[in-house]
Amino acid sequence: MTKCDVSLSADVEIEIPFEDGDPMGVTWHGNYFRYLERARCRLLDKIGYGYRAMLESGYSWPIVDTRVKFIRPTEFQQRIRIVANLEEYENRLKLGYEITELESGERTTKGYTIQVAIDNATGELCFVSPPILVEKIRACA
Amino acid sequence: MTKCDVSLSADVEIEIPFEDGDPMGVTWHGNYFRYLERARCRLLDKIGYGYRAMLESGYSWPIVDTRVKFIRPTEFQQRIRIVANLEEYENRLKLGYEITELESGERTTKGYTIQVAIDNATGELCFVSPPILVEKIRACA
Amino acid sequence: MTKCDVSLSADVEIEIPFEDGDPMGVTWHGNYFRYLERARCRLLDKIGYGYRAMLESGYSWPIVDTRVKFIRPTEFQQRIRIVANLEEYENRLKLGYEITELESGERTTKGYTIQVAIDNATGELCFVSPPILVEKIRACA
Amino acid sequence: MTKCDVSLSADVEIEIPFEDGDPMGVTWHGNYFRYLERARCRLLDKIGYGYRAMLESGYSWPIVDTRVKFIRPTEFQQRIRIVANLEEYENRLKLGYEITELESGERTTKGYTIQVAIDNATGELCFVSPPILVEKIRACA
Repeated sequence: MTKCDVSLSADVEIEIPFEDGDPMGVTWHGNYFRYLERARCRLLDKIGYGYRAMLESGYSWPIVDTRVKFIRPTEFQQRIRIVANLEEYENRLKLGYEITELESGERTTKGYTIQVAIDNATGELCFVSPPILVEKIRACA
Repeated sequence: MTKCDVSLSADVEIEIPFEDGDPMGVTWHGNYFRYLERARCRLLDKIGYGYRAMLESGYSWPIVDTRVKFIRPTEFQQRIRIVANLEEYENRLKLGYEITELESGERTTKGYTIQVAIDNATGELCFVSPPILVEKIRACA
Repeated sequence: MTKCDVSLSADVEIEIPFEDGDPMGVTWHGNYFRYLERARCRLLDKIGYGYRAMLESGYSWPIVDTRVKFIRPTEFQQRIRIVANLEEYENRLKLGYEITELESGERTTKGYTIQVAIDNATGELCFVSPPILVEKIRACA
Repeated sequence: MTKCDVSLSADVEIEIPFEDGDPMGVTWHGNYFRYLERARCRLLDKIGYGYRAMLESGYSWPIVDTRVKFIRPTEFQQRIRIVANLEEYENRLKLGYEITELESGERTTKGYTIQVAIDNATGELCFVSPPILVEKIRACA
């Protein structure tokens, strides 16, 4: 895991929904990106830089890269905890994730997402994170 | 079915996606609203009043009512045809839908959606359809 | 609302997920069927006849009919409560739903789903609900 | 890209659905896994080892690792082509993907998925791909 000078994390618990199971009876892999989104939103809200704050700040933060490893399958009605950890923020926002099935305590999934700032006024990609993100993260640390 | 002075329909064929199957091995009912959306977009494009034209016209058209009857289940890789028929347009936009499984020719699903115009400038609901919809439908008839 | 000799309800609260918003910025109507599913599962678990109990009982309970009215739009991060009420059970399982946006207290959505029992051994539709459903509902009342 | 002794690919074209757009007006990243699934199914069908053939063969093939890079955003009604290429098959099944927006011809997305065989009889992970996959791929080459 990337070293980060700020330790920041957030977590959320959910129950696997019925419709997220596929015909094999296990959670279809694409649904995990919904679960990561829950934890990412929680972390961004925690630092005061959620969706609305992002819009007001004049930047959008699309996901440009994601990798997820599926270690164990999950299924309908299992309860999972998704933890998001800040891994990088100075030039791009990288969050790491770990999902744990709560009854067994076993890790089922791990991954990351990378977001970069786009200046909405110019449409340009920012190679250094805008001050607002850096300030909000440091204020929360 | 409601009588409508204009006969207008559109159809689209799709193959049931893997992830739309639920743990029972059949298509989860909520996914059919995606299939109806395909046929609705096709019909609206056909009359030249698709998403972008709606936005430009100053109205949005939220769905306010829908009913769907599930007659037979479908499953992964079956091919289906979704037909959308215009049923009402003068005061609200009502489309009827029929879904047929192509190999057997059997009807699997039927339903409707009702949309009403909202004037984006005022946020008011329109109790009579704006002229632009009426003109586009009659021009296409 | 249909009179039912048994009063039974369940509710669940959720926060509208980011990805459930559409390009108009409001929740796409098809996503509400996920929210109803949450409350339906909660009610069925409450009477001890959730997914696994259904499978063991030898019946499946597909949704054959649903109607939903969308009264007000919702959007990302609004919190909603979905209440499911038992409306019929002797010949088919009909649940009514009401969704309320928690901050304003306003009702946003109402609807119903109808499920019928299929005998998994024969594939036949049951015109009277199997005793197991009736017993479980009455035991819970 | 990994060298592979067999050259095998499949592609599919789709139109970005309305409900796949997020409140920012662009396709939510998690929806791309649906698009990759379309191309993966097409490639597996092409070699005669689609979902049903997999089940009959006694193996399941869960996705254990995926990475996707999002190069340019897409939006509602853009047409995209998803190409899946065989990258590895002897020990695990690795497919690479490229998505191109058809009007501009620009590449919007690239990624891979890795699947491993699980022997359904024992639940054991296979460290070498079962002969059936190898044979089917070589027969198709």
